[in-house]
Amino acid sequence: MKSTKKVKEILSWYESDNPGTKANLARILSAGRLGGTGKLIILPVDQGFEHGPARSFAPNPAAYDPHYHFQIAVDAGLSAYASVLGMIEAGADSFAGQIPLILKVNSSNSLSRAKEAPDQAVTATVHDALRLGCSAIGFTMYPGSDQMFEQMEELRELTAEAKSVGLAVVVWSYPRGGDLSKNGELSIDVGAYAAHMAALTGAHIIKVKLATDFIEQGEAKKVYDKYPIDLSTQAARVKHVTQACFAGRRIVVFSGGAAKSEDSVYDDARAIRDGGGNGSIIGRNTFQRSREDALAMLDKLVRIYKGQE
Amino acid sequence: MKSTKKVKEILSWYESDNPGTKANLARILSAGRLGGTGKLIILPVDQGFEHGPARSFAPNPAAYDPHYHFQIAVDAGLSAYASVLGMIEAGADSFAGQIPLILKVNSSNSLSRAKEAPDQAVTATVHDALRLGCSAIGFTMYPGSDQMFEQMEELRELTAEAKSVGLAVVVWSYPRGGDLSKNGELSIDVGAYAAHMAALTGAHIIKVKLATDFIEQGEAKKVYDKYPIDLSTQAARVKHVTQACFAGRRIVVFSGGAAKSEDSVYDDARAIRDGGGNGSIIGRNTFQRSREDALAMLDKLVRIYKGQE
Amino acid sequence: MKSTKKVKEILSWYESDNPGTKANLARILSAGRLGGTGKLIILPVDQGFEHGPARSFAPNPAAYDPHYHFQIAVDAGLSAYASVLGMIEAGADSFAGQIPLILKVNSSNSLSRAKEAPDQAVTATVHDALRLGCSAIGFTMYPGSDQMFEQMEELRELTAEAKSVGLAVVVWSYPRGGDLSKNGELSIDVGAYAAHMAALTGAHIIKVKLATDFIEQGEAKKVYDKYPIDLSTQAARVKHVTQACFAGRRIVVFSGGAAKSEDSVYDDARAIRDGGGNGSIIGRNTFQRSREDALAMLDKLVRIYKGQE
Amino acid sequence: MKSTKKVKEILSWYESDNPGTKANLARILSAGRLGGTGKLIILPVDQGFEHGPARSFAPNPAAYDPHYHFQIAVDAGLSAYASVLGMIEAGADSFAGQIPLILKVNSSNSLSRAKEAPDQAVTATVHDALRLGCSAIGFTMYPGSDQMFEQMEELRELTAEAKSVGLAVVVWSYPRGGDLSKNGELSIDVGAYAAHMAALTGAHIIKVKLATDFIEQGEAKKVYDKYPIDLSTQAARVKHVTQACFAGRRIVVFSGGAAKSEDSVYDDARAIRDGGGNGSIIGRNTFQRSREDALAMLDKLVRIYKGQE
Amino acid sequence: MKSTKKVKEILSWYESDNPGTKANLARILSAGRLGGTGKLIILPVDQGFEHGPARSFAPNPAAYDPHYHFQIAVDAGLSAYASVLGMIEAGADSFAGQIPLILKVNSSNSLSRAKEAPDQAVTATVHDALRLGCSAIGFTMYPGSDQMFEQMEELRELTAEAKSVGLAVVVWSYPRGGDLSKNGELSIDVGAYAAHMAALTGAHIIKVKLATDFIEQGEAKKVYDKYPIDLSTQAARVKHVTQACFAGRRIVVFSGGAAKSEDSVYDDARAIRDGGGNGSIIGRNTFQRSREDALAMLDKLVRIYKGQE
Repeated sequence: MKSTKKVKEILSWYESDNPGTKANLARILSAGRLGGTGKLIILPVDQGFEHGPARSFAPNPAAYDPHYHFQIAVDAGLSAYASVLGMIEAGADSFAGQIPLILKVNSSNSLSRAKEAPDQAVTATVHDALRLGCSAIGFTMYPGSDQMFEQMEELRELTAEAKSVGLAVVVWSYPRGGDLSKNGELSIDVGAYAAHMAALTGAHIIKVKLATDFIEQGEAKKVYDKYPIDLSTQAARVKHVTQACFAGRRIVVFSGGAAKSEDSVYDDARAIRDGGGNGSIIGRNTFQRSREDALAMLDKLVRIYKGQE
Repeated sequence: MKSTKKVKEILSWYESDNPGTKANLARILSAGRLGGTGKLIILPVDQGFEHGPARSFAPNPAAYDPHYHFQIAVDAGLSAYASVLGMIEAGADSFAGQIPLILKVNSSNSLSRAKEAPDQAVTATVHDALRLGCSAIGFTMYPGSDQMFEQMEELRELTAEAKSVGLAVVVWSYPRGGDLSKNGELSIDVGAYAAHMAALTGAHIIKVKLATDFIEQGEAKKVYDKYPIDLSTQAARVKHVTQACFAGRRIVVFSGGAAKSEDSVYDDARAIRDGGGNGSIIGRNTFQRSREDALAMLDKLVRIYKGQE
Repeated sequence: MKSTKKVKEILSWYESDNPGTKANLARILSAGRLGGTGKLIILPVDQGFEHGPARSFAPNPAAYDPHYHFQIAVDAGLSAYASVLGMIEAGADSFAGQIPLILKVNSSNSLSRAKEAPDQAVTATVHDALRLGCSAIGFTMYPGSDQMFEQMEELRELTAEAKSVGLAVVVWSYPRGGDLSKNGELSIDVGAYAAHMAALTGAHIIKVKLATDFIEQGEAKKVYDKYPIDLSTQAARVKHVTQACFAGRRIVVFSGGAAKSEDSVYDDARAIRDGGGNGSIIGRNTFQRSREDALAMLDKLVRIYKGQE
Repeated sequence: MKSTKKVKEILSWYESDNPGTKANLARILSAGRLGGTGKLIILPVDQGFEHGPARSFAPNPAAYDPHYHFQIAVDAGLSAYASVLGMIEAGADSFAGQIPLILKVNSSNSLSRAKEAPDQAVTATVHDALRLGCSAIGFTMYPGSDQMFEQMEELRELTAEAKSVGLAVVVWSYPRGGDLSKNGELSIDVGAYAAHMAALTGAHIIKVKLATDFIEQGEAKKVYDKYPIDLSTQAARVKHVTQACFAGRRIVVFSGGAAKSEDSVYDDARAIRDGGGNGSIIGRNTFQRSREDALAMLDKLVRIYKGQE
Repeated sequence: MKSTKKVKEILSWYESDNPGTKANLARILSAGRLGGTGKLIILPVDQGFEHGPARSFAPNPAAYDPHYHFQIAVDAGLSAYASVLGMIEAGADSFAGQIPLILKVNSSNSLSRAKEAPDQAVTATVHDALRLGCSAIGFTMYPGSDQMFEQMEELRELTAEAKSVGLAVVVWSYPRGGDLSKNGELSIDVGAYAAHMAALTGAHIIKVKLATDFIEQGEAKKVYDKYPIDLSTQAARVKHVTQACFAGRRIVVFSGGAAKSEDSVYDDARAIRDGGGNGSIIGRNTFQRSREDALAMLDKLVRIYKGQE
């Protein structure tokens, strides 16, 4: 598949990576209906780990079957499918080569109770990603957590190994724990900081949550007050976050959070698009709807990112 | 030995595994009197570690001898024999090739006193399993425990190594510790969650306890109340648990717990069978009876799983 | 040296071990005046680590010299000499091939103060045992201690390495720490449990202390009350402990504890012999006597185990 | 490029290093407008990690782009550019060979909250430095912190690996944590001690902060009172710190701290020069000014170090 | 260089070591003016790490230069020079082959504040010792500290590696931490115990402090009271300590502690000599005097050990 100009431009930002990693980034950027546009929609299914099976799949029991998610990601023409070891193993052969895969290599769950030191268990290896034909590994870190340094050191090892074997690295950067207030977890200063740290640790694709206009840190507030940084709209905040990711030299995608109304999903996507973000990573809003509704919603999201809605 | 259609179907679920691992799964699925049916009865003898020798074997002193358990598993036509390093070493040569072996690679004991962070010591290696001719390793994790992440990371390493050398992985997933209530350890929501996490970590065979209809987690209760999930009978709960294991794409076996009346053992087996579970793992109820009684009971269990009782 | 029938029988219990390990077990079983009988007397000198030099050797200053212990073990016709790295290094060349050596690879000391989590430092390697010509490694674990799981994991690694290079493994299993009461450390239920766990972790030779008839654990007491287990004499308790070691399929030796009267040393040995134990491991009672007295006492012990006294 | 006498003299201090490491030191000493003089100006950009993106770059938004820093370091004729993994990866190919690079391999951030045990996460590897064409690794340690020993052990491993592959090692030694008072962090006794420990751990280039004339430690105060050590001026204190670095046999550079007035930046540089220090490492004072102002300031600093101002 | 009878006798004590290690011991025993006598004077310079640069070197500023210490050790005809990584690196090439070197591989500092768990950071590797041409590694352990087991395990790994590559091992054994009283740190029972444990862990050369006649441990006191052990003079106590080191089969050297009067330095040396110790390790008393005074003092010490004073 020939790369578009846009894809070539994005690949040029990753100037230190080997051709193997660039090829895998190109695969993700060229897959599906948004292939070649520089925009991405990724389907992540790690909710079973995070919240348990019933809370994840009871609204749409077909989703208990791992093949269901591969199939919908393929049928909707998405850019990549991200999930944990067992889920990927259960479909990687049947769907080999049909859609780029991201192996989530660490996971938390809602039985764990650490409040100030939230963490995740590393549950898969770089070698797992290779043997399963994945294009990237995915890793969650919790900036603010008392386990953050340990997480960063796990990430360092996994990243070094992944890059050496030609895989890409996707980092979920979710502020949580330590002294962070509840509002601070979604604040724009901490969110931009979390995105920046993901870039600094060497991530190729950065996944963060959409931020509010709350500012958590006193020292940061002084700066936001002093310099003209527009935080008034979601699109403006997306723009600020992408700026924090090497002035746009890194791919940044945003997550939607809990299942919600279709309209707010579309509004989020328009804000991401208008702010210069690279796309959406959208899980529960996909698989907790019926297949028909999910396909319709994903179709509309594709068209939004194409500028058609 | 030629594989039956049922065995071939089950093997097809493990589509990402190498032929070595599939061959070992096939050995377990083809062994004994239930061979080829897709049903399993496994004899586990790790009670000596868990409760000490007298509490385990005084009711039937012949069981102090490791050969006793190999012999009864062979004579009863069971699917596999699971035990810890010393026990397997003591009979693996005498019974080489007579029955598939599962090497339990971690163990707890009743002298340990951690209440909120229950754990097990890793007491054997993947290499031990290979040199002793085992078909699988077995690992216990305690969802809910403050040691859960560490356990999952041990499991990740052991699983990756086992799969690379063609072994299967059996995970005992027993909720315990942390904030879990006593009732919560056997609750259906946490039990299904525990089974699901075993599947997500890449287990081939999942072992859980039969669950009650109690629901532990508030967030889960909302979901169970909102969606029509039948939890009224043991068979219904077994069905829900197998659904949580990739919609039945993973082998799930259930344990009976402490020695109890024969009738309740049979009732459990019928519920497992009717709910679509793959079988029983039955330890104390076997070796704490006389050899004659145990063989008679196992014979009846075989017939139940064959649909003959 | 040709193996006796008794030695061949004992070796047959270790059916999973490689010829290297069996040869080293045969060396220990064939050495000295008890060679070939299936009985053992081992001289252990790790008291310097445990209690310091003066408390160990001031009663018999010749014993400050490491060669002293090698020589007396050889001259008394014992089965093996067990000591720590520095002590073995100081004589392994002078006495090469004269007596089987057991390298104690972990050690505690009386300056350490952990009460609920007693532990030992691992102070030597399997490679040390090989380069020094030893037949076995020795390891102490403390069932009950809050460090027990960590100790078992150290033991797992050392055992796997030792067995792979043809060495035998001797485990000292001494209940201590955690919630254990002082009486519980020497109780028969916990002592049999400790011996059983050593067998389960794959030990070839198990060393425990002689037990009292006290029963520590409530759950165990119910079983001892319900089933006919004779605990009334020391010989009966030895018999129960050997039963807990795979119905006698593992070598079990007993330690005598602090220096005491000759008569009680002999009474202990007769009880071990009559209960079916494999022998004594006897340190302070040897080296804290004069060489002449020690040789006389060891001579009498040999004759007791030969059934001549 | 031929080495000057001064460079050859400095290289002679590193008499135990291999030619690979000496070549990399020579590259740093020979680069830019101060090349060959034995003086250095290094641009460090790790403020994004330490304080977040807006606090670092909002004053001069062009600095969000990683290429900006490479370009200014090249254009100003500096000696080296030091930054963290993501920043170096984003420009190492575009600027390959244009300026020596120092890969900062550990990083802290202002979301972390340990007060008595400040630490940094190790976020890059020695192999990263090699694949990115860097001349050195950079590492921060916090003398006084309860994490100091762990940091020193991380440094030992990284240093040993770096030296074996011909890289140089730059150590940022910043007293912090433990029982240190706020004044003590910048005190001359602790500062000289921190510099000395960096030298003792094998650093090639030592980076410390300019010290005040406060003395933190009682035992040290006695010595400073008893012996004639001039601490009255900044130049005198610089001289004392360089003395503490093997009587001047190690390269020592000083940091300026937060952005401040140009005049105080120049005063600092003159003190460093007059005290015999090797140069400045100057981050925020560079990139938080406009490119024009920064270039003008760096030009003046170069002339100060050349003795022209 | 031909070995004297005395050197050959001492080497015979290390009967399990390979020729590489024996050659390095022979180098130390044959170097300098005491070469061949079995006596040693070692110059240790790790005070910069322990107390900081000014407290160490301000009394004699020439000592800030690492070459100073190499030169004085050579000029005084000492047996070996011991120091930490940076100091050895700074002179190992200039003085290659002129004096045996001991690389101190762990270090503490006076900014660290752990009182009950004193520890040291491991700051150099065995490979460092090899590449720098050292004859031995040096390691400090703190018997009594809550970190003692961890230290012993570090020592085990370093010792095993050092011996395998033909290096000797010098252990500084300094009681400290845990429940030890201040008087107990220098007590004779704990001091002899500390020396004994160094021997047990496999040290070739043991370094302890001169002990008082105080007895710390109650159980030990009973033994010292019961058996005739002369502790009345420093020479008698030195004799008891050497006895605790395998009845004199290990080299034991004694440290002098803080700088003090010349006469007490000489008295100490005579007591060491008369008690059968192998020599002195003397740091601050050397480098905190002027070069002339230090050389005169060392000359007198040499003559004392030669029995000429």
